[in-house]
This record gives sequence, structure tokens and C-alpha cells, in this order.
Amino acid sequence: MAGNSFGTLFKLTTFGESHGEAIGGIIDGCPAGLEIDAEMIQLEMDRRKPGQSAIVTQRKEPDTVKFLSGIFEGKTTGTPIGFLIENANQKSKDYSHIKDVYRPSHADYTYDQKYGNRDYRGGGRSSARETACRVAAGAVAKQLLKDIKITAYTAAVGEIELQKSLKELDFSEIEKNPVRCPDPAKAEEMETYIKKIRSEGDTVGGVVECVITNVPPGLGEPVFDKLHARLGQAMLSINAVKGFEYGSGFDGSRMKGSEHNDLFNEDGSTRTNFSGGVQGGISNGMDIYFRVAFKPVATLMQKQETIDSEGNKVEMQGKGRHDPCVVPRAIPIVEAMAALVLADFYLLDKTSKI
Amino acid sequence: MAGNSFGTLFKLTTFGESHGEAIGGIIDGCPAGLEIDAEMIQLEMDRRKPGQSAIVTQRKEPDTVKFLSGIFEGKTTGTPIGFLIENANQKSKDYSHIKDVYRPSHADYTYDQKYGNRDYRGGGRSSARETACRVAAGAVAKQLLKDIKITAYTAAVGEIELQKSLKELDFSEIEKNPVRCPDPAKAEEMETYIKKIRSEGDTVGGVVECVITNVPPGLGEPVFDKLHARLGQAMLSINAVKGFEYGSGFDGSRMKGSEHNDLFNEDGSTRTNFSGGVQGGISNGMDIYFRVAFKPVATLMQKQETIDSEGNKVEMQGKGRHDPCVVPRAIPIVEAMAALVLADFYLLDKTSKI
Amino acid sequence: MAGNSFGTLFKLTTFGESHGEAIGGIIDGCPAGLEIDAEMIQLEMDRRKPGQSAIVTQRKEPDTVKFLSGIFEGKTTGTPIGFLIENANQKSKDYSHIKDVYRPSHADYTYDQKYGNRDYRGGGRSSARETACRVAAGAVAKQLLKDIKITAYTAAVGEIELQKSLKELDFSEIEKNPVRCPDPAKAEEMETYIKKIRSEGDTVGGVVECVITNVPPGLGEPVFDKLHARLGQAMLSINAVKGFEYGSGFDGSRMKGSEHNDLFNEDGSTRTNFSGGVQGGISNGMDIYFRVAFKPVATLMQKQETIDSEGNKVEMQGKGRHDPCVVPRAIPIVEAMAALVLADFYLLDKTSKI
Amino acid sequence: MAGNSFGTLFKLTTFGESHGEAIGGIIDGCPAGLEIDAEMIQLEMDRRKPGQSAIVTQRKEPDTVKFLSGIFEGKTTGTPIGFLIENANQKSKDYSHIKDVYRPSHADYTYDQKYGNRDYRGGGRSSARETACRVAAGAVAKQLLKDIKITAYTAAVGEIELQKSLKELDFSEIEKNPVRCPDPAKAEEMETYIKKIRSEGDTVGGVVECVITNVPPGLGEPVFDKLHARLGQAMLSINAVKGFEYGSGFDGSRMKGSEHNDLFNEDGSTRTNFSGGVQGGISNGMDIYFRVAFKPVATLMQKQETIDSEGNKVEMQGKGRHDPCVVPRAIPIVEAMAALVLADFYLLDKTSKI
Repeated sequence: MAGNSFGTLFKLTTFGESHGEAIGGIIDGCPAGLEIDAEMIQLEMDRRKPGQSAIVTQRKEPDTVKFLSGIFEGKTTGTPIGFLIENANQKSKDYSHIKDVYRPSHADYTYDQKYGNRDYRGGGRSSARETACRVAAGAVAKQLLKDIKITAYTAAVGEIELQKSLKELDFSEIEKNPVRCPDPAKAEEMETYIKKIRSEGDTVGGVVECVITNVPPGLGEPVFDKLHARLGQAMLSINAVKGFEYGSGFDGSRMKGSEHNDLFNEDGSTRTNFSGGVQGGISNGMDIYFRVAFKPVATLMQKQETIDSEGNKVEMQGKGRHDPCVVPRAIPIVEAMAALVLADFYLLDKTSKI
Repeated sequence: MAGNSFGTLFKLTTFGESHGEAIGGIIDGCPAGLEIDAEMIQLEMDRRKPGQSAIVTQRKEPDTVKFLSGIFEGKTTGTPIGFLIENANQKSKDYSHIKDVYRPSHADYTYDQKYGNRDYRGGGRSSARETACRVAAGAVAKQLLKDIKITAYTAAVGEIELQKSLKELDFSEIEKNPVRCPDPAKAEEMETYIKKIRSEGDTVGGVVECVITNVPPGLGEPVFDKLHARLGQAMLSINAVKGFEYGSGFDGSRMKGSEHNDLFNEDGSTRTNFSGGVQGGISNGMDIYFRVAFKPVATLMQKQETIDSEGNKVEMQGKGRHDPCVVPRAIPIVEAMAALVLADFYLLDKTSKI
Repeated sequence: MAGNSFGTLFKLTTFGESHGEAIGGIIDGCPAGLEIDAEMIQLEMDRRKPGQSAIVTQRKEPDTVKFLSGIFEGKTTGTPIGFLIENANQKSKDYSHIKDVYRPSHADYTYDQKYGNRDYRGGGRSSARETACRVAAGAVAKQLLKDIKITAYTAAVGEIELQKSLKELDFSEIEKNPVRCPDPAKAEEMETYIKKIRSEGDTVGGVVECVITNVPPGLGEPVFDKLHARLGQAMLSINAVKGFEYGSGFDGSRMKGSEHNDLFNEDGSTRTNFSGGVQGGISNGMDIYFRVAFKPVATLMQKQETIDSEGNKVEMQGKGRHDPCVVPRAIPIVEAMAALVLADFYLLDKTSKI
Repeated sequence: MAGNSFGTLFKLTTFGESHGEAIGGIIDGCPAGLEIDAEMIQLEMDRRKPGQSAIVTQRKEPDTVKFLSGIFEGKTTGTPIGFLIENANQKSKDYSHIKDVYRPSHADYTYDQKYGNRDYRGGGRSSARETACRVAAGAVAKQLLKDIKITAYTAAVGEIELQKSLKELDFSEIEKNPVRCPDPAKAEEMETYIKKIRSEGDTVGGVVECVITNVPPGLGEPVFDKLHARLGQAMLSINAVKGFEYGSGFDGSRMKGSEHNDLFNEDGSTRTNFSGGVQGGISNGMDIYFRVAFKPVATLMQKQETIDSEGNKVEMQGKGRHDPCVVPRAIPIVEAMAALVLADFYLLDKTSKI
């Protein structure tokens, strides 16, 4: 119960360290008879993979997913889907300098405290490399969800924020720029800023927004497994995430009920959507939208003071290949986790009524 | 798997509707040999119960917890702890007016969509009355956690926000005012505002902050069950919650890595604590702190337009007894959920190393 | 995770000790819209309750089930079904003689070893009184299963065995005699034997058989949760059970494949049914049948040598009210556990195919 | 929730089909700091692998386990242990004759009913090839259990039964003969019989016994997860198993309480051990022993009448490479499953007491 599984009926379990031979996972519970579009899965992987543009880490990984079971003649069989992603380009020698050093705001210290030892190469299990498995499984989940459409995009990089409202955004712009921001002007501004930050050996945080459309009413399981509570856990489980809000979010806490209530239209839809598509933990058929805050990457290409495992002060400088800002590559991860949550609730909901 | 259980080793399962005979729950997995202070549990219940002050709902409930098993001669025995809380003061006739009406921004519509029928009295299962069970179980969890201290308080009511930093706050003030705000001046301002809002038949949202001290390093289970991810799910599962952030939170997304990194002292503590006491999903021994956003209560004592279950427009006005602002009563609930998360991880951590 | 829950989607969690105020449970995951026949539930309780005939324990318990939630206007609502059964007739003073004594072949010693303390009154949590909750929940499960019919009966008491084949049995005879044996002549023989055993202050074991008809093909989840594997766990979790076999069982181990294989008819049914209605862990539509071995009750009304908690030799004699043979009262428990297993797989199977 | 995971804290999830590229699994929850003896693991694999002797299937598989994560510098790190076993010698063309044919007493029919399609090559997921993953994970579990010793052996092949009592057996004989029977004379008799059965194109069942010594008291979680109930599920989840009994088993059902009760010695051990080392679902420190019944393998090298997926009568004859009796190769599988159960309870027990 070391927390490497996610989901109840559509359940993903992952394994693997940043610099082991391979990472991988098992999807248990995917219904039989689903046609699998392998190409679409690889496209999702490509959106996450390192080295895809000038503003992300230059580690080169093809991130090809190899499916080992559960798919036969192009269709799922109901048996577990095992898959593997090789670590092609691990450079373990890059990390020997952190063997006995605790990098600030990394998991080095806490893993050592909890487990007594750790695979220090590239952060081992705590590396965001693990999220490649989530994207692979999320792509299968997306195929199960068919018409439900999940779209994430960059809403902020540092202080540079998207100013347009949801309705003004043109989602077809998202994949046209390396930042994955639907506003081309802002995208350029963000890209320039990330490059500047990188040239300083620094990093910066940002915000991802996600919108889910065509959600049928009825998904989500109150009390503890409310739809937004599981989305929250899913997003907060992504490396570097510091906050989650959905619908009106933190802004909603400043509002009055008379402003915030979403009045009904006669067809059950609502005139406003401060609820963010979820009421009482269950989807109401309106668009679900939420925001995810990412902190700046902890690995800097600057000198930093820190301590080693004996408690001695040491000075260190980040080596290896790192992202100056995780947000552009986090977009497909956010989508994948949302897909995993929805696929699980989609299956669970089949048993809600006799 | 309708989501009424929380936790893996310290596991709470609850049942009950707002206007049934009783609500209750089962704690499975509490270790044997724990001395139970029944009085402390009742004090926690009293902090959540309705009717405790002039600014909360005037429903009268003694909310006495009756333990039915698992405790023998004052100590836990390792067997499941079953408990019951009677619904003493339910007034079901208050709710006949909403039998066929969907209240805006409530769970009426979604429950009907999901389940096909619902107990409409007082919101049935979707009522925050269910959280009384969480407070009871959380009080047991707190006793298991011993020295780990969990303190929540009101940080904002509508636009009125606590301006002091964490270090400037005097926690002994919290329970001295009905708003549960550690700054007496702000508390008065908030109280006055809540009374005004109530007199207008309106409601208002707010923010709860929580600080956890004396946490040993090592709690939390990466990957999907990171400490903050489970805290996030726990908080988002509380009625009316719209957002969760920990440590630097959304503000952290605007920072640079060189500002945000928490540099180590030689003893493993950190000089700053933007991490919020959690790194890589595992506690690092520093204080854990987080913020929870609550929307304004949906039930207004004003006329609102809405629809009935046939899709006809109808006008309705809230009756019954409702809170103008949930935040003061949410304080013990936030603490209880934090305690449940920590108790679970505390037990899980006993199996991390050989 | 103290093992007080059973099932994945149709999940029962129970609590309660033999001599506490009440025992009870929560059924989470029962679909909404199921009409509940309360009278049928009580009839099932009556089949298990003590004091029902001359050959069972004379403890008097009405064993009335009080449902506290999850059922509204006669139908399930999809929310958890909480229920309570009072311990009306507990006589705790009967048990003071075993406070510090370990009864042979009871759970006294092992509970003390595991938990360090125990509620010694009437065996506490280890008492078969807990199975009353299983019968209550099983009765709800039976109602969900509709046409699937589960019938258990006494197949042996000590050396007295039912000699007829399954096809020769008249199930309408089962409830006509206190032993619950479908062969009236054998039933009388068994009854006489149980009375004799009781008069000697002794006890005796026996075998329960169970047949499930009208099972649709497709229930069961390979690999680890094969239908018969979960049935096995379910039966072995009943107090005093020592063995489980299904279909050809242990006899099948002595057969050749050419004898044992169940050849198909053209409609997919099979000519023989050594498989016991399950192939590869999944129901094939044929009758499921299995056998459950119960050991003799450990509490004797004879003097026995034993030890106390300090390791001193002591002599003890059973007091209280005990069954000379558990088999007659175990019949509804076996059925209830089978119903819980099938209800769970029935719901799970709704997600097998897209 | 397709049942491909086993365990709560020491949790194994497996994937893979008989004729896919590879099978494998993930162990989640193995504590950090455990030294892994890779050679011992491979020895366990060799005990199960096909082609090891003249009386088992001649499929050739090296069954080399490749560990991909969770072990670093020879020790577990607390992160999930992913592993892979290649299917080196799959001969898929052997199985084209069963593509549309339902083999009697196989899982072909039920998989098609449940899932609508299936990987028919070599039985796909229903093949006992999957148990190789259990042996790999069980070998890790055995290393965690250290002094607890698990020994299984062949107790019967068809009608030929071991006649000696447990105390008369010499376990050092087990691995000296291909049948894995501790009585050399019986072993020879069994071997001769299996060869004869094979020459007739037939198969035969058998019984495996297992003894576990050095078990500390306290393992097992009543109520539903009694130690013997989980052992039962574990054994019944192995392909071809029809029955499970522990301690006195079915024989115990014929005994009187005065014969069956295990009287205590002053040190807490018992004079007899009809309880089989488990009382009230918890180990009592005495040896645990149980028996597992295996049916004859369903694939015969004889002509059999059967039907195809359209319901037409067809005649078929087994091809491929099959075991005439599964019992010799089942020995390490039984041990592995017992190890998984015990490892899980061993970890769970660390949280029983404060």
C-alpha cells in the first residue's frame, strides 16, 4: 500500500525509477471490446516527452509505449493491460554528485527519512519521469471516454497570466506553440520569459487550466470520493503541484450566495457555472473546469547551499537536464489524470441504479 | 464502492441522512490499547454542532456520540469502533416544499440524475450533517496521533481576510470568538459581517487555514497517495469546498525557483517553508499548513427562481435552519479530516522499512 | 484494515461484540431503486437467531434489524445502508469466569497475543454473534440478485451423512425440521444425535452444502478473485469452518481428466457438472454447488483443563448458552455469504464489456 | 477491479497472457531495506518452470525474472518492484485449432461469455502460465518472512496417497524426486502412474499439502480476513484447485468437541493441533498446515466431443504441450501464495497495537 495505484475499477498501478532500465504500469479493469488507437497513445506520449522543444529539458527519450498484454487483435480483452516504457537515455553518472547530498525542496531528504535508502539517480521514484506511465494509461482512458473531451492548457507562467475568459479562448491554438497557451500573444510572452529564466539558471512556476466538456450527469461518488475531490487528489499527486481549485475556486470564497448560485434553465442546464460542473460531488452535465498551481522546478543551474546526509554544509549546482518550467509538459499529464478519474467514475456509475 | 469510506489502515465508513433516525460510522483499523478520552471527543462534537452561537444555524442537536463497540474498559481493543449520533431535532416537514424542486447549486438535481430517487429531507445524504461522523472519528484519530497538533482557524469571511502572518497569530484566541479567528479585531469584523449577511437572507463564503505541528518526517505514500494529495482529497470532500492549496500554494506558481527553494539547516530543518512541510509527498518534519476555500451556502432565505423535477419554472424560498457562513463550524471538520489522513499515514509508515 | 469489510462494489462492513449494546453494519454500494422487503429480511434473521428450536443455544435474542439509512419510502437510494441489531439478552456475568482464562480452541489466546487486551464477554468480537450482521446484509443482497436462488442445507452432522444425490433432494423439506436437512429420515437421526451429544455436555461438527441456481454466465473476476476463490474466502470466514470444496472437490483430485471433463451440449450447458458451475473462475450458467466443513463447537459443558493468562494450569467448565452443533444455524449464514459474493460480482460484471 | 491484485499492504498485481511477449507484475508495499537474493528467486522459478522433468509439459521456458525497479544496490527501496518474465517459447500456431472451439472444462466458454472476445492462444490469461509471476513475487515474500518456513509437497496423485503422518515425513526428500513427494517409495509409484496416464493421453488430479513452521502468534485479521480464509482464497485462486481444508479439515466435521479441542500446555502451545495453527482467524504459534485439491488437467491428448462458438458439435484433440498432472509443478505455487498471504498479514500486524 505504498500508494502506487490509482482508481477503483479503472485502476492504474505504476512502477519504475528515472534511471532504471524501464518504467511501466498495469491498467486493471479496462472493459473488453475497446478498440485501441495506438497512434493516438503515442501522440499523447510525444506531448509529454522531453526534448520536444527549446523550452523543455533536453534529455532525449523516444518514450515509446510497448503494450505487453490485455490487447488482442486491436481490442481490449478485459484482462490487465501491462505496458513498458524504456529509459533509453538515462545518464546516471550525471547524478553521482547528489548521492550523499540533499537537494533543497526535492524528495531526497524525505525518501531517506522514510525508507532509509534511495535510488538517488535522477530522483529515482520521485522523478516526474513516472508521469509518462500516467500519460500512457490516460490515453487508454480517453479512448474509453469517447465523447467526453478533456483539454488542458497553460494559464500562467510566473506572473504572466492569460487574461481572456474561457469563452474567448481558441483551443485550436494550444498545440501550435511550445508553451501550450491558447492565446498566441501571451504564448510568445511566456516563451520569451521561460528562455530568460533558463538563461539565468533559474526556474519558474505556473498554472494549468483544464476544461472537460460533454460530461454526462451522474459521475462522482459522494461522500469521500466526490468527483472534484478525486480530481483534486489526482492533480495534487502530480509532481510540483501546490494547489487545486475548481469552478469558482478561491474566488468563490469571497462571493455571496445570491451571486454564486447557478440558477437553472428549464432543461436542467444552468445559466452560470460557478459550480464548475459538479454539485454535491456529482457531475451535473455542465462543463467541468479547474486550475492547478505548479511551483518552480527545484533543480537550479545555480549554486545553492545545502547539506549532505551527515548534516554537513555543502555547496551544489544542478547538473543533468531539467525543465526551466514544468507547465508546458504538464498539460498532457493533467489531462491524463483527469481521464483516469473520469474513466473510473464512468465505470462505477454503471452500478448506481438497478 | 459508493465512496463512503476513507483511509486504508485507519478507515472510516459513514452512513446516514440528515433526517433519518441517526447517522453513524465504523472506524476499522484503530490499533488496540489506545486510551479513549470520551470527554475530548464530545468537546470536538460541540465545536461543530449547530446552535452553538448566534451566527450559525439554530437547529438544536446535542450531537452526543454513542460508541457501540471496539472500546472496552476505556481502551480500544483493535476491533471496529461503531458509533451512532442521533438526529434529535429533525423537522422533516420543513422540507416538503423541496420534494419536487431542485434547489440551485445544491445536490438535488445531481442525486436525482445519478440515483433516480433521493431522500429530499434536508438534503438527505448530501447534507453536511454527515460531517458530524467525521468529527467523531477525527477525535479518535487525534488521540492516536498524540503529540501531533492540528489547528484550524478562520482566515477569511468573504472579503475580510486575516492579514497577519502565521507567526504573528495567537492560537489561544481561536476558540474565544464564535468565528474562530485568531485575530480578535478581525473576528469581530467578521462576526458583524456574517450577521449583516444573514439579515439580508444571504450567505457568504470564506477560507479556513490549518497548521499541523510536531509531525515526524516520513508520513505520506508517494506516488498517488502523496501526503498533500490525500489532504487535498480529504478537504475537497467536505461540503462546499472549492479549493485547496498547501505551502506556497497558488502564490508559489508565480515565484522563481531561486526564491522558492527551502534551504536546509544542518539539522535537516529548513530556513523557509514554502514546501509546507511536505516534499515529494512525504512530511519533512516542518509544519504542514494549507488553506481551504469554502463557497457561500447555497440555501438562501430569499426568493430564487428554479425548476422542479419536470423542468417547470418555480419560485422558491429557503426554509429550515441554515448557516449564513459555514466557515466557523467547518474548523473542527477540517481538523478532523486532517487527523484521519495523518492517522492513516502514521499507521502505513510503520511498514515502510524492515 | 482489520478485515471487517467484505466486497468491492457491494461492500459490507460490520462492527460489534457479543455483549456490547448492539452490533451492526454498513452496506455501501447497493444500487438505488431496489425495493426492500423488510419482512423477508426478518425471516432470514429468524432462521439464524438463537433460541429458535430445542437443538440450538437458548440465548433469547429477537434479532430485529433496524435500518437507519439508505432506504427511503421502501426503496434503496444508493446511499449507504446502516443497520443495527441490539444485544437484548446479553448476560455478561456468565463470562466473568473466563476473564483471565484461555478456553481451548477458542480465540481468547490469539486475541490477547495480537491485541494485548480483549473484550472477554462471550468471546467479544470473535463470537459468531457477528454473523447476524452478515445475514441481514445477505438478505439485502438476495433481493438484489432476484432470480438467482441460493439454497443451503445440512449435509452431515458428525458421522451421519446425507446419502442422496443432489437431484434426489426435496428442498421444500429443509425448513420443516430443526436440523435443516432435506431428507426427513436423516433429519430425525441427526436431531436425535445432537440431543444426545448435548446431554453429554459435548458438541459435534458437520457439513453444509449449498446450491445456487439460475446463475447467469460471466460472474467472477479472474485471476485472484475467481468466483470460487471468493466463495471459499467467504465460507472460511464463518466461525468454525475448516474446509471448503466446490464441484467435484477433493473427490475430483482422484479422477482422470477423461472422466472429469464436462462435455458441452449444443446450447453451451454441460452434460455433467464436475466444474460446479465455475470454469476459469467465472460462472458458466450451470448450478454452482459447494460444501463447507464445520468443526465441533469449542465450548463444552464438561470440565476441561486449560491455562490462564499467566500460564497457570486451571480447570474450567463451559457456562453460558451454547450450540451443541452449529450447522443448523449456519445454513442462513452460508447463504448470506454466498449472496454477498454474488451481489458483488453481479455489480462488477456490469463493467466487463464496453 | 478485474481481480488481478492480491494483498493489502504487500500487494501483487500481475498481467500477461500465455502467448504474449511477456508476463509480469508489480509488488507494491515491500518494505525498504530488504536484501534480495536473486539466485534464490531464480531457484524458485526453476521449481515451477516447464520442461524440468519427464513428467511435466515439455514447453521450454527459461523463466528468467528481470527486475526493473524497486531494488537498488541489492536492497529494496520501498518503491514498487516491477518485474518481467519473457514468453520465450510460445508457439501460437499450436492453438489455431481452438480459435473458435470451446475446450471442455476450460475457461474458453466463460471468457467469451464474460468479455465477448478472448486471446485464445494457449488459454490466454486463463493459462497457468500466469502463476510464474506469483512464484517470483512469492520468492520476495519468502525473503521478507525470514524464519517462517513454508514447505509444500505432493500428498496424493489420483488414488495414490501418502500414508505417513506429518511427523514421519522427511522434507529433505521432497526435491529429490520429480513428483515432489517426501516419501520416496510413494514418489516412485506416483511417477510411474503419471507416466502411464500420460501415455494414455489422459490426465489425473492430486492433493498438495503445505506446512508452515515458525509462525509468530498474531497473524491474521478477523473477521472477513481470517488467516485461513485468505489462505483459502489464495489457494483456490490457483488454476485447477477444487478444495481447501486446514487443520482437521473435513475430518474435523465428524469429530466431537471433546476430541477436537486443543488443550494448552503451560507455555501457550497446544498438545494437539487440530486447529492447524489458527484460532479465531489468527495464528497461535503452532504449525499451520493445510491441503489443496487439484482436479485433473482439462486438456487431453485424446479425442473429445465439444462445440464451437456457434454451438456446432465438433471433435477436437488436445495439441500443444501439457502437464499430465499439475501437482508437481503446483508445489512452488502453493508455497508462493502462502508466502504472499503471510507477508501481507506480517505487515498488517505491525499496526495492531499502539
